[in-house]
Amino acid sequence: MRDKAPLSSERPVLIVSDHTGLTAENAARALLAHFPAQSPRYLQRPFIGTVGAAREVVGEIAALVASGPRPVVFTTVTDPAVLSELQTAPALLFDLLGSGLAALEQEFGEQAARSVGRHHDMHDQTSYLARMDALDFALATDDGLGSRQYGLADVILLGVSRAGKTPTSLFLALQHGVRASNYPLAEDDFEQEAFPLPLVGHQAKAYGLTIDPRRLHMIRTQRKAGSRYASLEQCEYEVSRAERLFRRLGLPVRDTTSASVEEIAAGILSQIRRV
Amino acid sequence: MRDKAPLSSERPVLIVSDHTGLTAENAARALLAHFPAQSPRYLQRPFIGTVGAAREVVGEIAALVASGPRPVVFTTVTDPAVLSELQTAPALLFDLLGSGLAALEQEFGEQAARSVGRHHDMHDQTSYLARMDALDFALATDDGLGSRQYGLADVILLGVSRAGKTPTSLFLALQHGVRASNYPLAEDDFEQEAFPLPLVGHQAKAYGLTIDPRRLHMIRTQRKAGSRYASLEQCEYEVSRAERLFRRLGLPVRDTTSASVEEIAAGILSQIRRV
Repeated sequence: MRDKAPLSSERPVLIVSDHTGLTAENAARALLAHFPAQSPRYLQRPFIGTVGAAREVVGEIAALVASGPRPVVFTTVTDPAVLSELQTAPALLFDLLGSGLAALEQEFGEQAARSVGRHHDMHDQTSYLARMDALDFALATDDGLGSRQYGLADVILLGVSRAGKTPTSLFLALQHGVRASNYPLAEDDFEQEAFPLPLVGHQAKAYGLTIDPRRLHMIRTQRKAGSRYASLEQCEYEVSRAERLFRRLGLPVRDTTSASVEEIAAGILSQIRRV
Repeated sequence: MRDKAPLSSERPVLIVSDHTGLTAENAARALLAHFPAQSPRYLQRPFIGTVGAAREVVGEIAALVASGPRPVVFTTVTDPAVLSELQTAPALLFDLLGSGLAALEQEFGEQAARSVGRHHDMHDQTSYLARMDALDFALATDDGLGSRQYGLADVILLGVSRAGKTPTSLFLALQHGVRASNYPLAEDDFEQEAFPLPLVGHQAKAYGLTIDPRRLHMIRTQRKAGSRYASLEQCEYEVSRAERLFRRLGLPVRDTTSASVEEIAAGILSQIRRV
């Protein structure tokens, strides 16, 4: 967790923001993913909202230059004075928002408000509250709220225990403000030919999550080593029955072995938004 | 959740990515936050990885142009053929990664791998597993794992019930891979002059969370309307005792009324990373 002194082969990559720095960090990581041979060392410097704070960062950069490759700075700072100060650093600086703001000013025919803190890394206040509500919903239904929850949900995730329902529903809530309910598949469901009873009427919101049985076995073993629940045989049985059920019901299915929660969430969102 | 037909005053803002689109959406929202008079309507188009998929998006944009202001496109696509296709759209296009890649190629003296899917919106695979582990940890300790958890945590959040500990710890896990434990403050703790016993030895990782008592009263009322737990008096009492305890212990304190979980997480991270 702590910053170690960078190795001389590591490239210092500073994330400088007047807010949390998530936007700048995402952009930096997206760019650097195209250079797998590089060893970036990320240094987060959030809440840099004044010329004084920027000057401290410039001082840090000057110290880094002495001991390794030229630092790279990614910044979303838009206050002209703070940005000017950062531009004095002996580094390759990416002003991520500057040229975009100028282009939008021209397109919209109005001046951008370049004040500190304007930049909301995520969404606005209304959608922030929606995200916190969706998180409460996901946590409450994860404990089991009864079947009433399925009427209130935007999305219902079906899957066997530890197939990835909870991380996906928490991510849908925290990042996107989408209310996701989980429906854990059990023995009873596998026997049915039809949609699980509590979900009837909500088919359109249902998504199946599946997972490689060997990975499931690994995950369950961390929880309950040696149990029947964690055995490879049981995992193979449950996954194959779950996948058969998904096919029978015609559900869209996502595999959490090969996709991240971000990817699964984005896929689900693009589907519910296009219908 | 669904795309409605945009009002004629709304500006269509398309988020086009060969992956989840989170990076492009964050950048778009950060830029548009500087133009509060505009009414953007976000249309997410993730997983656009082929020329054919891009052509469909171009077709959509052409249809939008007929009925309102010129669409704005934010894209993180880097595959030259896919990007070229997008550039034919009748829209203002922001190629968010293109110029950055060229500058980094020059700085590093190597070619960027501009292949589809290179672009990881979040982190790499190792840190993805760390994030999922941290999420498991946060969920497990939220249920109460006993005092052993505090030794394993990167961060310990202290606060009264519903002060924001759980959303903050889940965000620290999902976004940053940081293991956060919660310590709910109760009557017993308020009486003490010293650090709560289970936390002794872990002071350096401890952060206090506080909240406006009126907001706490509102949140608790949604849970248990009319209870003593939810009463304004009880909320005022608990918050004032908690804040007194934080002062006595010299803990860094964050207010969840005025700051988002992103902001609180970024503040905590910059503190633990700089020590």
